[in-house]
Amino acid sequence: MDNGGGKGESATGILYGVGVGPGDPELLTLKALRVLQSVPAIYYPACAPGAKSYASKIIERYVRPDQALKGLLFPMEKDMERLRPIWEESAATMAADLLTGRDVAFITEGDPFFYSTFVYMDRIIRQRYPQVEIEVIPAVASPMAAAARTGVPLAMADERMAIVPATYDDGFLLRALEEFDTVVLLKVNSVMPKVMTLLEKMGLMDRAVFVERCGSPEERVVTDLRRLEGERLNYLSLVIVKKGAL
Amino acid sequence: MDNGGGKGESATGILYGVGVGPGDPELLTLKALRVLQSVPAIYYPACAPGAKSYASKIIERYVRPDQALKGLLFPMEKDMERLRPIWEESAATMAADLLTGRDVAFITEGDPFFYSTFVYMDRIIRQRYPQVEIEVIPAVASPMAAAARTGVPLAMADERMAIVPATYDDGFLLRALEEFDTVVLLKVNSVMPKVMTLLEKMGLMDRAVFVERCGSPEERVVTDLRRLEGERLNYLSLVIVKKGAL
Repeated sequence: MDNGGGKGESATGILYGVGVGPGDPELLTLKALRVLQSVPAIYYPACAPGAKSYASKIIERYVRPDQALKGLLFPMEKDMERLRPIWEESAATMAADLLTGRDVAFITEGDPFFYSTFVYMDRIIRQRYPQVEIEVIPAVASPMAAAARTGVPLAMADERMAIVPATYDDGFLLRALEEFDTVVLLKVNSVMPKVMTLLEKMGLMDRAVFVERCGSPEERVVTDLRRLEGERLNYLSLVIVKKGAL
Repeated sequence: MDNGGGKGESATGILYGVGVGPGDPELLTLKALRVLQSVPAIYYPACAPGAKSYASKIIERYVRPDQALKGLLFPMEKDMERLRPIWEESAATMAADLLTGRDVAFITEGDPFFYSTFVYMDRIIRQRYPQVEIEVIPAVASPMAAAARTGVPLAMADERMAIVPATYDDGFLLRALEEFDTVVLLKVNSVMPKVMTLLEKMGLMDRAVFVERCGSPEERVVTDLRRLEGERLNYLSLVIVKKGAL
C-alpha cells in the first residue's frame, strides 16, 4: 500500500490543510514539515496552469522526487459565479486521490484559515465528500511575521487589534483606526494612495510600517510610507498601524 | 568560546524572542527549534520563583542538559508601578548574560509580539542596552491554532477581523461584534457570564466556539457555550465568534 496513512486500503485519505508560513521556509512548523513529508501528493494553488506559486516555492526544498507536487487552478478573479466551478474541479481532483485512500496535503502561504484559498477547499470537501477527514495545520500568519521583522509589537496587555482589507471604505477604516490600538491593513497594494491620505489626515503616518512579501528573498520593509508613492506594490503586502509608540 | 553565536569574544550576545506556539510542541517552527538548540541559556516567564510555565513545558523535550533553562519572575499582577521594577530586574538578568557575549532566548507561548510578556523585555532591553541585537522569531498564535482545531475559519476574501480582550465594556464589544465578520475574544475566563449575555442578546450564541489551552494535553473545545455556565475557566482561553455560517 501507498504511504497514505495508517489506515486500511479501502479507507479514505486525510486532507491536510497545511499552512507553510509567510515566506521564510524556516518558519514552517515541525508538524507542517512532518505532514508534508508523509503524504504522496501535495497540491498548491496556482494562478495559471503549470505555474508555480509563492507557497510551492517555500516548500520546494522539503519535497522528495517521489512526491507529487501539483498545481490546482485558483485564478485571480473576483466573480464568484466563475470561480465556483473551478474550485469544484480542484476539490474533485484532490477527492480522486483521497477516495483511493491516499492522504493529500493542500498548502497555502501563511495560515490555512486566515485569508487563504484553503477555506474554499475545506468548505467544498466538507459538503461534497463528508466521509473525508480534514486536518488543518495552523501556521505563522503574515501580521505576526511582519511584526517580528519590523520590531513593532502587535498587541500587549489590554490592547485591541483589528485586521482589515484596506479596500474598505474610508468611513470604516477611520473608525477602526480610531477604536483600535493596532490596525493591520491587508491588501494595501491597490489602494496605497487612499491609505496614505487617511493616515496623514489622522496623524498616524509615523505610526505605520509597510511590509511586502515578509521573510521571502524579495522581502521589503518601508518605515516611511511616503517613499512608496507611485510605486507598484505586490499583492502580499500589508501595513501595521500601531498607535502607541513604535 | 561558548556557543554564543558567530561573533568574537568581546561582542554582545543576541537576544532572541522566541514564540513557541499555542501548546503543541510540534507547532514550534524549524527556526524556533534551531535557535533554542543553539543558545546556552533559555529564559522563560514564571509566575512564581522556581515555577515552571506553560511555555517551558512546551519546549522541555527539546532542551539539552547542558543548556540552562531559567525562570524569570513575571507575577500575575496589574499594578504597573509594582511590575516595572520586577521587569527591569528580569531584563538585567538576561543582560548580564548578553553582555558577556552569550546569546540568550526568551520564550513565550504563542507569538512574541501578540499579547506576550516578551514585549516588555524587548522595550526595556532596547532602552537600557541599545547595543544588544534583538531578533524576534514569530510563531503560531492562539487564534490560528483555535481556528484550525475547531474547523472555524478566521477570515476569507474581504472579511474583517477583530481581536479584543473580552474584559472591555459591552458598548465596545457590541460595536465590534456588529462591525466585524469575525471577533476573537481573548481572556474570556473572568467574564464569561457577561460574554454569554452579550452573545445571546445579539443572536450570536450559535456562532461562537470556546477553546481552552489549544493544542496542549489539557485542551478543551466547547461548541455550546451554555455548557460553560458556572465553570472555572483557564486564563488561556478564547472565544471565536464567526458571523458567517460555521
